[in-house]
Amino acid sequence: MVKIVLKSFWYKYQERYQAIKSVLCVGLDPEFGQLPESAKKAANPIWEFNKAIIESTAEFACAYKPNLAFYLADGIRGLDALYKTVEFIPENIPVILDAKIGDIGNTMNAYISAFFADLKVDAITINPLIGSDVMQPVQERNAFAFVLCLTSNPSAADFLKEGMAEKIAYWLQNYPQENFGAVVGATYSANLKTMRNLLLNRILLIPGIGAQGGDLKTVLQEAKDSFATPNILVNSSRGIIFASRGKDFASAARKEARRLTREMKNALSQE
Amino acid sequence: MVKIVLKSFWYKYQERYQAIKSVLCVGLDPEFGQLPESAKKAANPIWEFNKAIIESTAEFACAYKPNLAFYLADGIRGLDALYKTVEFIPENIPVILDAKIGDIGNTMNAYISAFFADLKVDAITINPLIGSDVMQPVQERNAFAFVLCLTSNPSAADFLKEGMAEKIAYWLQNYPQENFGAVVGATYSANLKTMRNLLLNRILLIPGIGAQGGDLKTVLQEAKDSFATPNILVNSSRGIIFASRGKDFASAARKEARRLTREMKNALSQE
Repeated sequence: MVKIVLKSFWYKYQERYQAIKSVLCVGLDPEFGQLPESAKKAANPIWEFNKAIIESTAEFACAYKPNLAFYLADGIRGLDALYKTVEFIPENIPVILDAKIGDIGNTMNAYISAFFADLKVDAITINPLIGSDVMQPVQERNAFAFVLCLTSNPSAADFLKEGMAEKIAYWLQNYPQENFGAVVGATYSANLKTMRNLLLNRILLIPGIGAQGGDLKTVLQEAKDSFATPNILVNSSRGIIFASRGKDFASAARKEARRLTREMKNALSQE
Repeated sequence: MVKIVLKSFWYKYQERYQAIKSVLCVGLDPEFGQLPESAKKAANPIWEFNKAIIESTAEFACAYKPNLAFYLADGIRGLDALYKTVEFIPENIPVILDAKIGDIGNTMNAYISAFFADLKVDAITINPLIGSDVMQPVQERNAFAFVLCLTSNPSAADFLKEGMAEKIAYWLQNYPQENFGAVVGATYSANLKTMRNLLLNRILLIPGIGAQGGDLKTVLQEAKDSFATPNILVNSSRGIIFASRGKDFASAARKEARRLTREMKNALSQE
């Protein structure tokens, strides 16, 4: 099997962070019903919307994270929008496809071909429930995946907060940080600190900011790595892209991305 | 939110089973590299291949199960093939989209819109790791999902066979069987019997036959329900669709589907 990724997400993240000192991940979750009326009139509404959002926020984005669900929900036109979106994002900004997939052998390889070779994203999110068979194809092909460890939704209490998050984090220690990061929800800062201690020198993708709540300053202080870079990405989706749903949506998104970036820089620089 | 499904998968399965007394689920996993050369020459290879497979196996299929990965791996043309495939499958044969997704709130709702309202499948597979937030949108919209409980891959030993499978099965008892079945791997029959006892009167989707191994007779005896119908679906993918990779692929698939169906009928009728 050919190795697909020439420059792994790991290195691309470090370079982007050093260049702009931002840990902001802009979540591209273009829920169709929420799009501004002006975008809805376009031939491909999601693509038109994303294009404007990317143009206005790229300066502040350490990464972009489109979520597969919102593209599939617009059928073939939606998948086309996803392809166009990933191609449009500047080469130096890494792209994470949020798909939370987790399958075995030839199936997982098919996903990896789809996402890394065809769509050409830099990283994906994966669900580790069925074990190392999910990880192997990612590692073999030198791709990069964020492994779901702890999420910030209420029902994370069903399994993840009942010991499963720690189990996954321990297990993840067997895998190289150049190929695997972790998704760690930001709802409780005590959880965050525990997770970081189990996941040193590994990039953490932190959802749960903005629409999902979570105090930014605490989150950053608890989650940042003790190495040269913080090794975190803090995601905001709706808070940025739907900051306004009027004609000024792109400039409102820019304003919110700038505000969040400044707030994060301040929080990270405090001791 | 509008309820999407008029006749739930649960009823469609029972009717199909009564009509043909087969528990065979034909897995439509058209791995591109494995397609017969004759199909590869078509404008849409996966669609041409699936069309021939469905025409030749429909008589024996209690359900079809396309796996999303193999369609996304062929990009926009692949997604188009998936739409055409689902539309082509006869109305009385239920279709399960194998995607093993598991996300929250508005994201899960986007997947459900994509798969049930647009693509119009009858059921999906879901991954319950992040808890009941994955289940809620399925139930609210009266859709149907098979919940990953126990898989047949080697690394199921990492988490699922370490107690997680039973935890998920207990938890699943809180949810109606008209909306939720379970994926239960067939590798070890002892596991199967345990899982069935926890999941009475619930449809079990059993992979791990054919290419993945597993003794058919034992599997059926251990997994069948004690009610009027066996409430199982036994999946075979590569064993059927790639029974031959020459020009005779469709007739070879038909032959293998017929053989499996007969073997299953015999095994089920034994006491």
